[in-house]
Amino acid sequence: METDYRKMWEDLGINMEKHDQLLAVLPFVYRNVYLSQKNRPKAMEYYDFVVSGVHGIRVKELLDAKDAGKKVVAYFCLYVPEELVIASNAVLVGLCGGSNFTDQEAEEVLPRNICPLIKASYGFKAARICPYFQAADICVGETTCDGKKKMYELLSELCPTYTVEVPQKPDTEQARELFYREMMALKSKLEEITGHKITVQDLKKSIGIVNAKRAVLDQLISTRKAVPPPISGKDSLLVFQIAFYDDPQRFTQKTKELVEELQERIKNKVGVVDESAPRIMVSGCPMAIPNWKLHHIVESSGAVIVVEESCVGTRYTSMGQIDNSANTVEDLIRAISDAYLNIHCSCFTPNIGRVEDVVRLAKEFKVDGVIHYSLQTCHGYNIEAAKMEKSLKKINVPMLKIETDYSNEDVGQITTRVEAFLEMIRK
Amino acid sequence: METDYRKMWEDLGINMEKHDQLLAVLPFVYRNVYLSQKNRPKAMEYYDFVVSGVHGIRVKELLDAKDAGKKVVAYFCLYVPEELVIASNAVLVGLCGGSNFTDQEAEEVLPRNICPLIKASYGFKAARICPYFQAADICVGETTCDGKKKMYELLSELCPTYTVEVPQKPDTEQARELFYREMMALKSKLEEITGHKITVQDLKKSIGIVNAKRAVLDQLISTRKAVPPPISGKDSLLVFQIAFYDDPQRFTQKTKELVEELQERIKNKVGVVDESAPRIMVSGCPMAIPNWKLHHIVESSGAVIVVEESCVGTRYTSMGQIDNSANTVEDLIRAISDAYLNIHCSCFTPNIGRVEDVVRLAKEFKVDGVIHYSLQTCHGYNIEAAKMEKSLKKINVPMLKIETDYSNEDVGQITTRVEAFLEMIRK
Repeated sequence: METDYRKMWEDLGINMEKHDQLLAVLPFVYRNVYLSQKNRPKAMEYYDFVVSGVHGIRVKELLDAKDAGKKVVAYFCLYVPEELVIASNAVLVGLCGGSNFTDQEAEEVLPRNICPLIKASYGFKAARICPYFQAADICVGETTCDGKKKMYELLSELCPTYTVEVPQKPDTEQARELFYREMMALKSKLEEITGHKITVQDLKKSIGIVNAKRAVLDQLISTRKAVPPPISGKDSLLVFQIAFYDDPQRFTQKTKELVEELQERIKNKVGVVDESAPRIMVSGCPMAIPNWKLHHIVESSGAVIVVEESCVGTRYTSMGQIDNSANTVEDLIRAISDAYLNIHCSCFTPNIGRVEDVVRLAKEFKVDGVIHYSLQTCHGYNIEAAKMEKSLKKINVPMLKIETDYSNEDVGQITTRVEAFLEMIRK
Repeated sequence: METDYRKMWEDLGINMEKHDQLLAVLPFVYRNVYLSQKNRPKAMEYYDFVVSGVHGIRVKELLDAKDAGKKVVAYFCLYVPEELVIASNAVLVGLCGGSNFTDQEAEEVLPRNICPLIKASYGFKAARICPYFQAADICVGETTCDGKKKMYELLSELCPTYTVEVPQKPDTEQARELFYREMMALKSKLEEITGHKITVQDLKKSIGIVNAKRAVLDQLISTRKAVPPPISGKDSLLVFQIAFYDDPQRFTQKTKELVEELQERIKNKVGVVDESAPRIMVSGCPMAIPNWKLHHIVESSGAVIVVEESCVGTRYTSMGQIDNSANTVEDLIRAISDAYLNIHCSCFTPNIGRVEDVVRLAKEFKVDGVIHYSLQTCHGYNIEAAKMEKSLKKINVPMLKIETDYSNEDVGQITTRVEAFLEMIRK
């Protein structure tokens, strides 16, 4: 089996030596961060399995789909609607960008002091160590932040890249119109690549598929309101990370099984921590696989993360159940584009919705404290933290602001700060 | 006279103690950086005079205008069209943000690791040391970068703020439409503030005023093609910095006088440096007054800056002569919005126009080298530098990339790098 994949990776142009190094590290990290957890839900086995074959099984699926004439579309950000890509008969795969493993290659072109996610997004392609990226026919980027926006320009020299404009003042009529027209342009681009003309039926079906995925993820989120929560923050984070690149229908089915187990746990008052464990919300930048750094620190310090206001958390489902009752392609795409502008990304100004979300979630999930998480030099989230702290103060929820990258250098310092924060909460 | 201004500043709510400290430093810096230059054009006396009364005379003019019922509109970025503000019968004043004097106040709210211009823009208001800011009835921001976009949200808690959305993919029809509608919305906002309904005549007149200003600045730019150039880079930079906040008609007149003197110098082959001095282009982030750091280093090292591809250089005039022949408000505003999208800011993706501009300017101004200037953590310009270097390599023009802030800490290091760059050029 292993040998088969080596051939597959070689055919994809993977830098085998560097890739071997990466794969040698991952199991160790995963064992330490994930498998060491006590009392995990049994249904997490599926996600463990996905990680154990992270560059194998799913990549093989993509290549099989390509053999059957399908195209593979890679993306990095929620603002590229899954519904459109699925409707075009392409396979969508979220790329990761959660490791500093390729910083050296990235920094040959990109500045050092940019966000680690952007560095990794570019670096994994530049270093040729991501088989998903190698398998992709096109990468669809977006203009959600300066760093990514400009990085995509450089990425376009390494692989076909198409960038979607996301407006910045989403409450204006002209911004909604711009995004709708950008979605129509993306539809044309996808049709051009796949040779498949998107129909009303395609969109109705794809909206249904993604609605089902969001519904089950919403249920997963809800189970964590229980005291104690039936699943760790780390495990829930992993489920969301895998949601970005797994087959959506299988993922929905497997996550349904997980949710059923969690609901059973709640009935039986089975939790992953003691009832007294401090309940923490993490809010801010996305955490791409394998970025488990903050979650591991927090949950190793005796607290439990019960909700992520993040692209790997509540923002992932914030477009809600999209109405697919319309009967023209234009109206269905309008429904998609309107719904997606409900994702409260810090790229918007103002972005009051995010602050309101955090305040609401703090109450609903009975959190004892919020950790505001920014990737280094992410100006959007970094600056928005000021408003967040002010609003949380009004409801007496303390906030700790962490800005970090993917290195291990500051793990000691962050651990100390998190422990002090938890101690303050426990008092 | 001095005493009058103290009363004026106090009435504006200025933090007098801190403001005194600022004003005590400026003349020393100005003497060292500007007045020490040899063979300056005589017409620079006007700009010296403006700087010598930097927080006095012009502020008094603004207050007199306010007494006469006018409103004062402050702004930071070229993407807020002067034409619209002037047409609304308001006085437009560009704020500076070129000093780290208020970093402490700014960092109470903003992250430390953001662009120094953004920190200063916010800090000068937070610390109450800028009489222009204090005199402003509204500040008009824009979404040209993540940092400014989010900073304006916090600024809005300190003073009335309105943010214009600038699109990010300016070549699409939907982006042009969005910007046009944003301009129409800004027009309404200005009318609301000033109580003055903008007419066709107002726009025709204001377009004419700003066209005249741009025409003379274009002439100033052109004089520097001469070998040797008749004016230093530092002096030209100052003229552009003052263009942001001086009365436009007086400024145009005074700059006309300067240009005439420079043209006379060219005829007589009078230059500010020896013909053999290396000719440098600076390309990148704007330099707000009193940010003269890089120019001072370069010109103290024996080179001369002959062109700035910058908001305080060629970008300032890149909207060109706007056609004011249309006869409806909508058509005139359409002419403005279309013209402004020709400013090749790194906020755009792709922004090929800027690279093309630099390559063209390098030839036109016979430059020996380009210094790419980025403010710290300005992802847009920082990342774009990679493309710039590649394109300049093709025409055999060397490029030095400098990323810096407003502190003096790296002056020694930058000087060493600039000197090494010049030495390489001279070989």
